[in-house]
Amino acid sequence: MAKIGEFTLHATDGAARTGELQTAHGVVQTPIFMPVGTVGSVKGIAPDDLNNIGAEIILGNTYHLYLRPGDDLVARHGGLQKFNSWNKPILTDSGGFQVFSLSDLRKIKEEGVTFRSHLDGSKHLFTPEKVIQIQRNLNSDIMMVLDECVGFGADKEYTARSLEMTTRWAKRCREEYPRGAGDNLLFAITQGGFFKDLRERSIAQLTSEDFDGFALGGLSVGESKEKMMEILYHSAPLLPKDKPRYLMGVGTPLDIINGINAGIDMFDCVLPTRNARNGTLYTSQGKISIKRKEYAEDDGPLDPNCNCYTCRTFSRAYLRHLFQAKELLSFRLNSIHNLTYFLDTVRGARKAIREGRFAEYKKSYEAIYPNEVV
Amino acid sequence: MAKIGEFTLHATDGAARTGELQTAHGVVQTPIFMPVGTVGSVKGIAPDDLNNIGAEIILGNTYHLYLRPGDDLVARHGGLQKFNSWNKPILTDSGGFQVFSLSDLRKIKEEGVTFRSHLDGSKHLFTPEKVIQIQRNLNSDIMMVLDECVGFGADKEYTARSLEMTTRWAKRCREEYPRGAGDNLLFAITQGGFFKDLRERSIAQLTSEDFDGFALGGLSVGESKEKMMEILYHSAPLLPKDKPRYLMGVGTPLDIINGINAGIDMFDCVLPTRNARNGTLYTSQGKISIKRKEYAEDDGPLDPNCNCYTCRTFSRAYLRHLFQAKELLSFRLNSIHNLTYFLDTVRGARKAIREGRFAEYKKSYEAIYPNEVV
Repeated sequence: MAKIGEFTLHATDGAARTGELQTAHGVVQTPIFMPVGTVGSVKGIAPDDLNNIGAEIILGNTYHLYLRPGDDLVARHGGLQKFNSWNKPILTDSGGFQVFSLSDLRKIKEEGVTFRSHLDGSKHLFTPEKVIQIQRNLNSDIMMVLDECVGFGADKEYTARSLEMTTRWAKRCREEYPRGAGDNLLFAITQGGFFKDLRERSIAQLTSEDFDGFALGGLSVGESKEKMMEILYHSAPLLPKDKPRYLMGVGTPLDIINGINAGIDMFDCVLPTRNARNGTLYTSQGKISIKRKEYAEDDGPLDPNCNCYTCRTFSRAYLRHLFQAKELLSFRLNSIHNLTYFLDTVRGARKAIREGRFAEYKKSYEAIYPNEVV
Repeated sequence: MAKIGEFTLHATDGAARTGELQTAHGVVQTPIFMPVGTVGSVKGIAPDDLNNIGAEIILGNTYHLYLRPGDDLVARHGGLQKFNSWNKPILTDSGGFQVFSLSDLRKIKEEGVTFRSHLDGSKHLFTPEKVIQIQRNLNSDIMMVLDECVGFGADKEYTARSLEMTTRWAKRCREEYPRGAGDNLLFAITQGGFFKDLRERSIAQLTSEDFDGFALGGLSVGESKEKMMEILYHSAPLLPKDKPRYLMGVGTPLDIINGINAGIDMFDCVLPTRNARNGTLYTSQGKISIKRKEYAEDDGPLDPNCNCYTCRTFSRAYLRHLFQAKELLSFRLNSIHNLTYFLDTVRGARKAIREGRFAEYKKSYEAIYPNEVV
């Protein structure tokens, strides 16, 4: 068995690459999409479903789990995998993004960030050291450093100051948890907003440190697709080739294809599960809204090219009925399908890379989502 | 294979009996509990779950399915089983109870009952003939006649007049669908409120007609347990021995045990699924509220004597967390467990009857629910 943290590339096709990452709870094939299990469950989806759809790793949100049920409680139960009965890898974010997007009255200082809980208004402090302690309590396979995610529209001066602090915070995280202190991997998060030179600076600073992987943070925060692609294609090649690269919080199927094309290995996004609950479903014929009248009598499967439980078992007419009636089952069946679609997307990408036809694979997705091509 | 509608008794123990009923979509072992799938799905539970927990027959609500998606639509899709991909028996109620409990401005006449939809206020008429046509469109394995369910507190004169109309309505249903016209069975519903002589009268009138089974209606409508048991134990023995007997809308596990003890074969109730969504869970140690603080750190299974997916896989602490966080998964996992508990209750009853120890089995449930013993 490979050493924990070992990242092996099996094939490349242009900048796109496929490989595997060894974690304490098993191997992750890359490129990979990670379903988001915010509070310790992927919404509407149990581990049996996750295994059936071939999920390899899920994401948990440090901010949410810290507030409820509490990382101490999870630690007493043997970590997140023992607690939620998902015995495969888990990545946890650092809570930074949620502090900035969900909590009230956040205040950023060099020490860390103070914020009020969105649940009960209670006051908390996240320092770089604290979020590592929390993630170790969760026994996350892949921990993320605390960072400041600057929103779209932040000026260059603010962004520059912020990325320097993010670098200092990352170093403090590494000091709190030196390599080899345990089986948990630690990824750094590069920032720099929408300024190419700042992206370069952040990457240069962080890649000189000893992390197990590197993320691009601060994308998909309100910018145009063009801006996102510009920064993605500029930054991804600057990340070390021999470490896993993670594009945080991204994105649509075509965003993921573009990420893979730029050399990214890991993705996470709430889109498949959130859209599932809104009735927006991804198919090999494009995105559809299952609530539309045209599906009321449609006896066909949601996606004839999908082999998930939902597509194998139910008609579009029934799925529309469940959605219209706001039946709980609608959320599960739609989520099973959308997650399968996102996982099929990365599984297909791996195969295409191995077979040297990733450009063609990318074109097939551009044909499905022509309006998203930039 | 037995003829459709054939009901075979395999063993009796006192008044309790176990047997099987042949339907167009397979055999149902009795006594049986039928999970309620109001609008064509058991809330939060897919057919895969239903198969895993050993459900043999589910119930659909005619009133709901008529309003949405419409019985015509279901008929065009080949009936309810084809529509919802549950390929085992389905019983549909007549819509009578829902008209009386859910709709606005209902008006009962000899012809039938007019009501306004709880969804959009539109006006509709259910006649005995109409509810049979709807249930045939749904291709229900067991159809129920239209009846008037008189509430607790109705006076004797009203109840007497009502039961006569219910008998006339039942005859009109049978005329609309003569025996042998198709593979759908038709059950009559006896009424009579909380007056023993009226119960006798209703049963005498309806059992002289040619129905495939007989239900006790109008119980569990607000009366005390004592009242319910009095009417149950008085009425059940008056129903034909050679036909399935169905106690509608009942009830708690101990109600079901009492029903079986009185000679009832079939039960349905929203209790296991509704309580699952409220965090009230049935266990071999009694009913628990999973939200209670005492379960926050409880590593044990929900019910050590249960073999369902929920109990095999998750701790009470995790189930409490999911419930507190209002996670969708909570509804599914709790429902899987509660339905398993109710099905285990009837499966255990069958075995106890075959082995001549049903009285002892009943005592074990009285020990679990001492406050419900009357």
